[in-house]
Amino acid sequence: MSLDEFGLIERIRRRAGVRADVALGIGDDAALLQMPPGQQLVVTADTLNSGVHFPAETPPADIGWKALAVNLSDLAAMGAAPAWCTLSLSLPEASPTWVDAFADGFFELADLHDMALIGGDTTRGPLSISITAMGHVPTGEALRRDGAQPGDDVWVTGVPGEAGVALALWQQQRLEVSGPASDAALEHLRCRLARPTPRLAAGWALRGLATAAIDISDGLLADLGHICERSQVAAEVLEDELPMSQMAAQAGEAALFRTLRASAGDDYELCFTAPASVRGQVIESMASVAVPVTRIGCIRTGSGVRRVDGEGAVLPASRRGFDHFPAEGRSTGL
Amino acid sequence: MSLDEFGLIERIRRRAGVRADVALGIGDDAALLQMPPGQQLVVTADTLNSGVHFPAETPPADIGWKALAVNLSDLAAMGAAPAWCTLSLSLPEASPTWVDAFADGFFELADLHDMALIGGDTTRGPLSISITAMGHVPTGEALRRDGAQPGDDVWVTGVPGEAGVALALWQQQRLEVSGPASDAALEHLRCRLARPTPRLAAGWALRGLATAAIDISDGLLADLGHICERSQVAAEVLEDELPMSQMAAQAGEAALFRTLRASAGDDYELCFTAPASVRGQVIESMASVAVPVTRIGCIRTGSGVRRVDGEGAVLPASRRGFDHFPAEGRSTGL
Repeated sequence: MSLDEFGLIERIRRRAGVRADVALGIGDDAALLQMPPGQQLVVTADTLNSGVHFPAETPPADIGWKALAVNLSDLAAMGAAPAWCTLSLSLPEASPTWVDAFADGFFELADLHDMALIGGDTTRGPLSISITAMGHVPTGEALRRDGAQPGDDVWVTGVPGEAGVALALWQQQRLEVSGPASDAALEHLRCRLARPTPRLAAGWALRGLATAAIDISDGLLADLGHICERSQVAAEVLEDELPMSQMAAQAGEAALFRTLRASAGDDYELCFTAPASVRGQVIESMASVAVPVTRIGCIRTGSGVRRVDGEGAVLPASRRGFDHFPAEGRSTGL
Repeated sequence: MSLDEFGLIERIRRRAGVRADVALGIGDDAALLQMPPGQQLVVTADTLNSGVHFPAETPPADIGWKALAVNLSDLAAMGAAPAWCTLSLSLPEASPTWVDAFADGFFELADLHDMALIGGDTTRGPLSISITAMGHVPTGEALRRDGAQPGDDVWVTGVPGEAGVALALWQQQRLEVSGPASDAALEHLRCRLARPTPRLAAGWALRGLATAAIDISDGLLADLGHICERSQVAAEVLEDELPMSQMAAQAGEAALFRTLRASAGDDYELCFTAPASVRGQVIESMASVAVPVTRIGCIRTGSGVRRVDGEGAVLPASRRGFDHFPAEGRSTGL
């Protein structure tokens, strides 16, 4: 079944959230938005392509969720409050069923975070979703990548590596992404890949505490490396302190998880640094938003990221994540 | 020649413009931007796909220019000052030559309008360019589509239809888009298609004068129809008052131009309405920014757009523009 453009647009437009600060939403040449005083505008853009950033058989609702989640995750890593987004949707065919299901996942997450869709377009072409997400943060309070200091602790939220396990199991044809897995542990892992949780509340709670932050999209070591590069420092990660996945263990994949947890991307947890003097406050603030947090290392002078084992021996560098444009076709941020 | 992601990103990043209001640009999880006080944020997003929105053989510099121009044109139609943009670039291969040429056109136009690139990503895939453009306008002064009043004049800037002539000549294999035409008039027409001029200065000058405005992307009648729909009014367009193209005449294409001028899109001129009482001010304000302007009709009560000839007879409705998603694959705005 095909669909004229009016019907397709209407299906999306009528589900766009309402916010008091949207003076003019979808339907004019551009949207008009009211910025709160004393805040800086925070803007990020990410594209997901079918077969590159998600398996082609991924349910459209999961695609809608994830396309927005990766953008919200960038706002989380800045400590920003989400507000508005644009959506450019390229579709091979104008299927109302597909669009409705995509919108189910997209707006489920958008509504959770009071994010209003304020513009964009639909185009015919290979399935691709480009989102620009906007939010705001009190002036000067954003979490950046360039503030890590020697002596800071390195922290991580949640359990990075679970999405990587799900991806590996899918690649080995041991996990379907097209629907729920029968096993509860496997289903947990599948959801970590299909429906990542952007850590927005954690980002806000870390304002004034974290010296630097990033979301983990390329892999823990690679993304911590970005902090080190921008902050001109080195980091030491204690292999034995990395969070273990109970769900991976329950699914019999503890060994696979261990090989992936430092390098796998797609979890969208936050990695951040904070002075050792606020260690207690970090733990309290993360508890207040019910986000698990683990101290995994420290910042040193120098450059680069080193993994060390329990005896302090340096482990071989792990493969970097997904930033090899021609080889793997992942998107790379500007 | 392929290119690692770092080189590709660096080629674009190092050419991004600098603005004092960019507190943090490309290179973190998101950009941090300082909104001027007393202004509303204006946001628009448009995607161009190869073979759909431009012929595949279009030179990359022209693609870079046009992808930004169509977004700037939306800001112009709001009366907004451009400020920042994100760029999501999908490329079949990582060619530095292509990227450099694309950036030549993109930044030529961006620098003209002091527009800073502040984020985005590069992805492997069919050639596609998604841009979200941001600007600002004094609160309450934006030009919207919904303010046209019965009795208002209808105006148009420039000479809509010239881009349509160029497109028709290309479709008839009488004009190359891959480089300059030898004939000066044909080259003028080709440039109208390849490098449209966003009417930003005209948009600013119309603040406080125009009651409604839109940029002409779908065709003059179709876009004026959008104003009528949003303003709940009708419009009457005087066929004989529509601007004639001297360049189309010089190229021997006066007849073709006449058949296209009311319906062809892609010119990105502004169509706007203003009270008859400010007719002189409209002419003066457009003269002050050196933008040709023509009064082409008036707003009535009722609905829809009518074309009338010199004797007042209603002409048959012309085909609408490019808004038929499945049939022609044009993008359609949310």
